[in-house]
Amino acid sequence: MADKANRGDAVVVIGLGRFGGALATELAARGVEVLGVDSDSRNVQEFSGRLTHVVCADSTDSEAMTQLGIAEFGRAVVGIGTDIESSVLTTSILIDLGLSDIWAKAISRQHARILERIGAHHVVQPEADMGERVAHLVTGRMLDYVEVDEGYALVKTKAPGWADGRTLAELGIRSRYGVTVVGVKKPGTGFTYATSETVVRSGDTLLVAGDTEKTELFSEET
Amino acid sequence: MADKANRGDAVVVIGLGRFGGALATELAARGVEVLGVDSDSRNVQEFSGRLTHVVCADSTDSEAMTQLGIAEFGRAVVGIGTDIESSVLTTSILIDLGLSDIWAKAISRQHARILERIGAHHVVQPEADMGERVAHLVTGRMLDYVEVDEGYALVKTKAPGWADGRTLAELGIRSRYGVTVVGVKKPGTGFTYATSETVVRSGDTLLVAGDTEKTELFSEET
Amino acid sequence: MADKANRGDAVVVIGLGRFGGALATELAARGVEVLGVDSDSRNVQEFSGRLTHVVCADSTDSEAMTQLGIAEFGRAVVGIGTDIESSVLTTSILIDLGLSDIWAKAISRQHARILERIGAHHVVQPEADMGERVAHLVTGRMLDYVEVDEGYALVKTKAPGWADGRTLAELGIRSRYGVTVVGVKKPGTGFTYATSETVVRSGDTLLVAGDTEKTELFSEET
Amino acid sequence: MADKANRGDAVVVIGLGRFGGALATELAARGVEVLGVDSDSRNVQEFSGRLTHVVCADSTDSEAMTQLGIAEFGRAVVGIGTDIESSVLTTSILIDLGLSDIWAKAISRQHARILERIGAHHVVQPEADMGERVAHLVTGRMLDYVEVDEGYALVKTKAPGWADGRTLAELGIRSRYGVTVVGVKKPGTGFTYATSETVVRSGDTLLVAGDTEKTELFSEET
Amino acid sequence: MADKANRGDAVVVIGLGRFGGALATELAARGVEVLGVDSDSRNVQEFSGRLTHVVCADSTDSEAMTQLGIAEFGRAVVGIGTDIESSVLTTSILIDLGLSDIWAKAISRQHARILERIGAHHVVQPEADMGERVAHLVTGRMLDYVEVDEGYALVKTKAPGWADGRTLAELGIRSRYGVTVVGVKKPGTGFTYATSETVVRSGDTLLVAGDTEKTELFSEET
Amino acid sequence: MADKANRGDAVVVIGLGRFGGALATELAARGVEVLGVDSDSRNVQEFSGRLTHVVCADSTDSEAMTQLGIAEFGRAVVGIGTDIESSVLTTSILIDLGLSDIWAKAISRQHARILERIGAHHVVQPEADMGERVAHLVTGRMLDYVEVDEGYALVKTKAPGWADGRTLAELGIRSRYGVTVVGVKKPGTGFTYATSETVVRSGDTLLVAGDTEKTELFSEET
Amino acid sequence: MADKANRGDAVVVIGLGRFGGALATELAARGVEVLGVDSDSRNVQEFSGRLTHVVCADSTDSEAMTQLGIAEFGRAVVGIGTDIESSVLTTSILIDLGLSDIWAKAISRQHARILERIGAHHVVQPEADMGERVAHLVTGRMLDYVEVDEGYALVKTKAPGWADGRTLAELGIRSRYGVTVVGVKKPGTGFTYATSETVVRSGDTLLVAGDTEKTELFSEET
Amino acid sequence: MADKANRGDAVVVIGLGRFGGALATELAARGVEVLGVDSDSRNVQEFSGRLTHVVCADSTDSEAMTQLGIAEFGRAVVGIGTDIESSVLTTSILIDLGLSDIWAKAISRQHARILERIGAHHVVQPEADMGERVAHLVTGRMLDYVEVDEGYALVKTKAPGWADGRTLAELGIRSRYGVTVVGVKKPGTGFTYATSETVVRSGDTLLVAGDTEKTELFSEET
Repeated sequence: MADKANRGDAVVVIGLGRFGGALATELAARGVEVLGVDSDSRNVQEFSGRLTHVVCADSTDSEAMTQLGIAEFGRAVVGIGTDIESSVLTTSILIDLGLSDIWAKAISRQHARILERIGAHHVVQPEADMGERVAHLVTGRMLDYVEVDEGYALVKTKAPGWADGRTLAELGIRSRYGVTVVGVKKPGTGFTYATSETVVRSGDTLLVAGDTEKTELFSEET
Repeated sequence: MADKANRGDAVVVIGLGRFGGALATELAARGVEVLGVDSDSRNVQEFSGRLTHVVCADSTDSEAMTQLGIAEFGRAVVGIGTDIESSVLTTSILIDLGLSDIWAKAISRQHARILERIGAHHVVQPEADMGERVAHLVTGRMLDYVEVDEGYALVKTKAPGWADGRTLAELGIRSRYGVTVVGVKKPGTGFTYATSETVVRSGDTLLVAGDTEKTELFSEET
Repeated sequence: MADKANRGDAVVVIGLGRFGGALATELAARGVEVLGVDSDSRNVQEFSGRLTHVVCADSTDSEAMTQLGIAEFGRAVVGIGTDIESSVLTTSILIDLGLSDIWAKAISRQHARILERIGAHHVVQPEADMGERVAHLVTGRMLDYVEVDEGYALVKTKAPGWADGRTLAELGIRSRYGVTVVGVKKPGTGFTYATSETVVRSGDTLLVAGDTEKTELFSEET
Repeated sequence: MADKANRGDAVVVIGLGRFGGALATELAARGVEVLGVDSDSRNVQEFSGRLTHVVCADSTDSEAMTQLGIAEFGRAVVGIGTDIESSVLTTSILIDLGLSDIWAKAISRQHARILERIGAHHVVQPEADMGERVAHLVTGRMLDYVEVDEGYALVKTKAPGWADGRTLAELGIRSRYGVTVVGVKKPGTGFTYATSETVVRSGDTLLVAGDTEKTELFSEET
Repeated sequence: MADKANRGDAVVVIGLGRFGGALATELAARGVEVLGVDSDSRNVQEFSGRLTHVVCADSTDSEAMTQLGIAEFGRAVVGIGTDIESSVLTTSILIDLGLSDIWAKAISRQHARILERIGAHHVVQPEADMGERVAHLVTGRMLDYVEVDEGYALVKTKAPGWADGRTLAELGIRSRYGVTVVGVKKPGTGFTYATSETVVRSGDTLLVAGDTEKTELFSEET
Repeated sequence: MADKANRGDAVVVIGLGRFGGALATELAARGVEVLGVDSDSRNVQEFSGRLTHVVCADSTDSEAMTQLGIAEFGRAVVGIGTDIESSVLTTSILIDLGLSDIWAKAISRQHARILERIGAHHVVQPEADMGERVAHLVTGRMLDYVEVDEGYALVKTKAPGWADGRTLAELGIRSRYGVTVVGVKKPGTGFTYATSETVVRSGDTLLVAGDTEKTELFSEET
Repeated sequence: MADKANRGDAVVVIGLGRFGGALATELAARGVEVLGVDSDSRNVQEFSGRLTHVVCADSTDSEAMTQLGIAEFGRAVVGIGTDIESSVLTTSILIDLGLSDIWAKAISRQHARILERIGAHHVVQPEADMGERVAHLVTGRMLDYVEVDEGYALVKTKAPGWADGRTLAELGIRSRYGVTVVGVKKPGTGFTYATSETVVRSGDTLLVAGDTEKTELFSEET
Repeated sequence: MADKANRGDAVVVIGLGRFGGALATELAARGVEVLGVDSDSRNVQEFSGRLTHVVCADSTDSEAMTQLGIAEFGRAVVGIGTDIESSVLTTSILIDLGLSDIWAKAISRQHARILERIGAHHVVQPEADMGERVAHLVTGRMLDYVEVDEGYALVKTKAPGWADGRTLAELGIRSRYGVTVVGVKKPGTGFTYATSETVVRSGDTLLVAGDTEKTELFSEET
């Protein structure tokens, strides 16, 4: 694995389920060299051809991991999903092998805490994160909601009726709602950057950034 | 369930696992009336007290669903996770009951397609979505990445060294990279809206919107 | 699979259990080209030699289905029996592949509804249908009962004693019972068409068509 | 169970799955007294209220069967589906108890043979029977097909185009095809008896009786 | 299998567990040609070399049984132990194949009844038979007990102390107890036929035949 | 359990399966006080009423055994069938409790050896014993065969044709075959003791004792 | 749990299997207050009465642990044996609760490493430790072997024949073998401290301390 | 296996789990010829290369054991862990094969008793032994504790503060506490033999032998 296919560093992805599989596929699509590892031969077969290398191995077996040369990778993602024991054992072995950037998926808060305690550098909880994100969409008029920082969110929402035909400057949204329209999407096109001269039309989709509660209030009152 | 606790409509959440549980908890925290349904009494016990109502019931039993008065809810979320059969049967029963806004979680693309075909109004795939999102973070310098629309992304990244001490107007980022800095976060504070006068400091965190590839290029070249 | 063995179109039968197996065998006996698909190698082995082609494959794997050339078949039967998830996934894939005539077996009413919703063209429920049919035979004197249309049945029953030696014209069954004798079977022979001159003998078997309730009344009062 | 609700005899139905459940429901709908027996309390609960009596019992326990008074029933249906051992043990106990009319469902030919050998009076195979029946519908233009006797079938099919506007007498179907049109259904109505004066219209549905092969030929050549 | 190894007929033994295995081994030791059949390859391996032929096959598959030429055997033993379904299916297939002398092992009374009803010629219940036999030994002084006919038993017991040094003629056991001493065993030797002149010694073992209750009384009162 | 129902000692029977159940039933029928012990409540329920006492207990739990007062029984039978571990643990506990007469059932030779090594006083193998016994009946003309001692058997067989109408004295069976006829059964009666004056008739059943091989030869050559 | 039974601190023992059970029993015997926790009600029942308190609880449920007041204990032992996930989750919760002295049992080296990484204060591996210890006894003449420190062992061994009747001073064992005899046991007595005047007799047992290899050499060459 | 690698006798280790694996590894490290036997091919693979010979075999199969030449080994260790049946069967076979020195691991007291009764020469219980040993460490100041004989223990503990700078002779520990300091370890070094001139320093670790209770008292009061 001497030569790199592009400027990005090679990544080892352990566990090619829904999370790890999507992640590895996305990396490969962007030209990153990926070594996929899974103990289920069906997953290995499914991903062979899509990733740079795919091997069938038991990631809780430290000798097997050593022989695969995992130690030479800079980054690893532990996507093992349902088996906390395997997830923790695998992450522990990666730490033993000295990897400097380990991402691990957790299925519960306690699982996440253990992963952090044994030394995982980044821990993500897809199910819980997505659950919180969707909660904002279920009840309101928002089309999408992402909390990019604590207390600071990005919201995709339909333009309010009363804004039809007016420029952002005229609407004065920032002063009235404390939020900023950062993008506008006309039907049939993509998003473009919004300036104070941008004319909003009923039917447009707005991308709004700002304080969490204010973005919600804006999307609901429109 | 006649009286509503706030302006939001009541939501029934079926399946109180990681996704449904986080979603229901977030809704309840925002004052929404939530009926939680799960066939596992341990989950029911865990969430009783946190949600407006929690009942232990088999959501694939249409009579049981009818007796619970599910038909009177406007919105439902099917968070059933690992059992496609239960997920599809439950969603089908909700459609029979006439609910007008059904969100359902899928664990695979084919599962998602079936849910859409039988009439679910929104289908989400937390594992795959999060996998794709994390793929952008593993290899680059980005701190967060969200694709808010096809081909249009929002990226959180560290300010580049060469930007230190200059205003956004001076830096001309939009003309040089085709992306827009929509927010800046100084160490120890939260995000604030970025204007052309905002002075960027090394150590600041930038929120950048724009074409997917351009946001990536910007975050990597800095 | 270019050449057809007879005038009939080729049929793919997925799931070679009791239902699918009997169906495929019957088709093959009538000279129809049949591709049998089953994930259980024992079923594959049992039917190899009986059908035109039999392959061992996972029908919930859309790539595998594509590679088998399923899309070129005009008709498909999903005989998968006990696993609703596999039945629904397989049917969904067949719809994706564009098959224009899909028959699917359901094991419950809700299962049937899902199959119809995702787009199956015909759904049959052997267990429930046969249960209803046998119910007519258990208590009465009927030898067979088929409801050919809503409210219109065909009944096989023994000729009543008082009919012995008289022609159908003399008996006036249609005017007295509102049903029509459409066939008569003498002991030791097969059924033949019944005309008004046909003489009924005690011991004959009659085939009677008519309104559902009237055919039952006729068979019981004789 | 002294008093009978109507003229029909009481029936004990053992195994309230898809087949036995549909059968028992149909019997009850026709006013027959039914005792349902199932070892699964969920099935018992589902059918309580629908049938005259429903009890939860192990039908392979001869003492339990005796205490339930099964011996006093004239007719029994063994609808036990997937467990050959239970099906055969139960049928054997019913024979010991002296029931004079026992119907039993089989899931395979060998199972059917065993049931007949130990003394079941009627044996039905819903899956296989329905499989054969549907085989006739998959490839042809027939709308329904029932083999009412060996070599003698009843077929529901669309009227051929060339028959439009002519009487059955003019068409001479019996002399040309060897089959008899026994019923005609005009769009929007039910079936009625066909006479030689009946005028056939394109779009009508015909019920045709006759030799198995001839009915198929007729339905295909039209 | 044309040539016979000795005067005995060939026997097929299906199920090489404890019962069938011991039976087959004993037959083979006596020079009988034996075909052993078992679906468990470990049993097949264990008995290969001990029996004339051993094959690994599923005895509930009638085609497999036919291909093995089972129909040419005169005698069969079904030693299948714990699985009533397999036992009954296998026995049914042997009857279909026309074997004239079928022995089958039953594990319960109802199982035995089913085997007899479907046509097994001999049915044995080792566990229950041995249980009854041992019951006679647990409480008394008998060393062995066999009921050779209804009401007629053979008992092995220690000679009573008062018989020491006297001939059977002097002891008059038949007149006093109604039983007959048919064999005597001196310590260190085998059994020999007992005559009226045989001298009994304390420490001898007697073989006593007679009415069931009388043999018990004799063995207990000594 | 102070008073005894009859002269026999009380017996504890552990494991009320086919062997233990038949044994306990036989003991109870003969008036012996029996304590039945089984860990399966269904077996306990089945035998309550048939035996003096039946308790549901885990016989591998030495404290439970002590509390049941097992130590006060003189005799015990371990009929535990399929679980060697439970059989050996239970037997070991009985030995700890000091029982002086322990019978245990083994399912294999090695199991039997272990039971003997840990101190069981009698070990029986019903399946293997019955297998050997039936082996003698399958091929020959014998009606029953019991090996009462090593090399000495008792055989029940049909009288040979050439013996018809002659006394045992005339036939000289002992001198010609080295076996002794110890009982004769006339059709429709039971066995009676055979003397030299007994006249044998074709159709009689003979009980013959002697050297194992000689009894077989006699039964086959007749 | 305010009052302490003796000077020792209260200990919570989670998992009352072989290791935890023996440990808790030993603590209780020494007068230490012990709270036993196990999720298996049978273990709870077995230890109730032996320990100060025993509760049935799921130790991986942090709320349950909090409610039990575990945080007030100074010391905890996690004896959970076979389930690494439960062991790690439980230990992690104890750390969250702030316990200052946590002992945990590991079943593998990797398991031990994880426990240490998440913050367990002491980790023991009974199986592996005992395996190493017994290895020294299997091949040599040693009666016991304990490695008290790396490279320093304590060995129990029989006195060599040539030492009979001589004092330790005369034998000069320390100078000749580099080990020290620290205790001597005469037959029928316990160990006593050894001085240079102690006379060794053939048959005595010696307790010898010293360098690992030297103690082995001494025990083997004697 | 003719030639021996060193002076020690060859050992067969059956069951290469945590206990047996550590034991076999330790033996091999000391140059002993070891034959490892395990029925799990993964364990066999893991230890091949580490031990002289490793084979995959079922140790409860006496023929397999015989063919492996186990009878020629002088010593055997049965490390089978969780399956009492396999442990007892294997040990019984080793006794049949005549091995003169058999070590067996037990998981419970009753298991240990059975192993002893069938003839195992040494029985160890790692979990229970380690549980008792750790119990001494949990509550006190001891660093290690080993009971080398009944009532005689060896304890590793920190030197008490008041001993700092004084010789053992000055401290008079034996007369005051009835225990003997047999070794001292200075920080950064190993243990060395302690004489009356040894100067103790605060921070030293002491190895103390003596009466069980007195060693505990000494370690706690310091």
